[in-house]
Amino acid sequence: MTDWTAEIDAAATRIAGHAQITPVMESAALGLPCAVALKLEQLQHTGSFKARGAFNTLVASDVPAAGVVAASGGNHGAAVGYAARSLGYPARIYVPELAGPAKIALIERTGADLTVVPGEYADALDMARRWEDEQGAMQIHAYDAPATVAGQGTVMREWEAQGLQADTVLIAVGGGGLIAGALAWLQGRRKVVAVEPATCNTLSAALTAGAPVDVPVSGVAANALGARRIGAICFGLAQTHGVTSVEVTDAAIVDAQKRLWQAHRLLVEPAGATALAALTSGAYTPEPGEKVAVLVCGGNIAPDPLG
Amino acid sequence: MTDWTAEIDAAATRIAGHAQITPVMESAALGLPCAVALKLEQLQHTGSFKARGAFNTLVASDVPAAGVVAASGGNHGAAVGYAARSLGYPARIYVPELAGPAKIALIERTGADLTVVPGEYADALDMARRWEDEQGAMQIHAYDAPATVAGQGTVMREWEAQGLQADTVLIAVGGGGLIAGALAWLQGRRKVVAVEPATCNTLSAALTAGAPVDVPVSGVAANALGARRIGAICFGLAQTHGVTSVEVTDAAIVDAQKRLWQAHRLLVEPAGATALAALTSGAYTPEPGEKVAVLVCGGNIAPDPLG
Repeated sequence: MTDWTAEIDAAATRIAGHAQITPVMESAALGLPCAVALKLEQLQHTGSFKARGAFNTLVASDVPAAGVVAASGGNHGAAVGYAARSLGYPARIYVPELAGPAKIALIERTGADLTVVPGEYADALDMARRWEDEQGAMQIHAYDAPATVAGQGTVMREWEAQGLQADTVLIAVGGGGLIAGALAWLQGRRKVVAVEPATCNTLSAALTAGAPVDVPVSGVAANALGARRIGAICFGLAQTHGVTSVEVTDAAIVDAQKRLWQAHRLLVEPAGATALAALTSGAYTPEPGEKVAVLVCGGNIAPDPLG
Repeated sequence: MTDWTAEIDAAATRIAGHAQITPVMESAALGLPCAVALKLEQLQHTGSFKARGAFNTLVASDVPAAGVVAASGGNHGAAVGYAARSLGYPARIYVPELAGPAKIALIERTGADLTVVPGEYADALDMARRWEDEQGAMQIHAYDAPATVAGQGTVMREWEAQGLQADTVLIAVGGGGLIAGALAWLQGRRKVVAVEPATCNTLSAALTAGAPVDVPVSGVAANALGARRIGAICFGLAQTHGVTSVEVTDAAIVDAQKRLWQAHRLLVEPAGATALAALTSGAYTPEPGEKVAVLVCGGNIAPDPLG
């Protein structure tokens, strides 16, 4: 059985000086009856929490001479490219044409060796696997690997060290790497609410079915939260510690995105506003006196406003 | 002689619970040889520090039944509108057509009674003064009034309470309200660098002339930093405590804006990136070992990316 506290402590030591310590704030300006604690993890390098898992994995690994390889629609690829470049390893990222110019430019700026693949994510993944097999490069899993989860767990460790006051933490779920890290760190000490778009609800579907199952994927947050199936590590931690699973509509996500921008000039991608959307839409209603916190997880909006 | 420490302490008490406590972070990702402390004051209500001065003035004043009035190209009007609405006072804001749709919408959202005036700022100011005379409404000065300066001084007070570690603080200057507040609070304890666009350099021109003088106003940051003449309070404090005055080009401002967005998903208006531009352009070069801090002061970019 994994000692997650020790793993996440070790991850925090590994990524110190590499990952950005992201700021926190408390907002009473989001149109809610209560104040909300926010962790601004979209200010992380490459615009999402994924840099943490990438750094933790690379620092902990014996990276082969061929370096690292990843297939990604955006945030994971950018994080792997950035972390590899920072640590002096070659990185090769395969990205599907469908990722769009904003995320392609983001990955390009990391200095990774980028190949834009005609077609969809699966085509990019095929090419990444071929590169792995032929060159001996190392793949970094986007969410379902212990080192990735331990890296993402440093978000909640850092937030608690910054004085988080909350009974309940709301976290958006795609493949489940971020929430798995939070569950692994918290060990049941706070209530965790898993928020998913109704159009890509891997965790909610898995909890209903009693096991991870494939779901159809669409909607405004799909290029960040659109995993096909919840990670096994996440599903196990959700069963052990318990989560409250809620779903939100695309309209609620877009509304929450607008509130963050209008109230605080926080410009985030749809995935980054998904957790807040559970509060603003009423998908999750806190009890009187319940203190809530929202993890803002990604800022790679398209189109790029300064692109 | 004003006891600024007492004034700013009192302002902090007045605005507590009204103004947003804004987060801070340290960045090593802006392409500079040294890490930089950032205060994210653009996350303040209505997207700039000006809400502090507006709240301090209104809470300290005996507001007449006719409420408050302001003429503004944007940030000040939005702050006055927001503060008045929060405190239950009527607010009338006159804005010139030239302010553009993003800032007009920002003021509209505060719930103020907004009149868009054909022509330029001076035409809006004429109408605001007529309203003041006819209705007995109260004007709030954008930068050259003690209550405004004391309110803006709470930024630096808050930053020090958040553990600011810096020898030197870089601050953008328009009319000088923000930097006046900083000088008034710091009382010479840290070096202050005043950063101005070369195309609207009220403080630099005043320091050269030995007294406030009118300057021509243009450039990318003009709608926020484009005061005609430095405030007398600011000029006096600059002479008492000393400032290092530097100028930056529009190109340097736009480059700094891009760095904040690309490195940290902080989307700011040109005025908000002006202080950073002094470092990234080399207009100000820290000594070896000198710890620097940058006040990010405004986020009301046009066009509005979600407008």
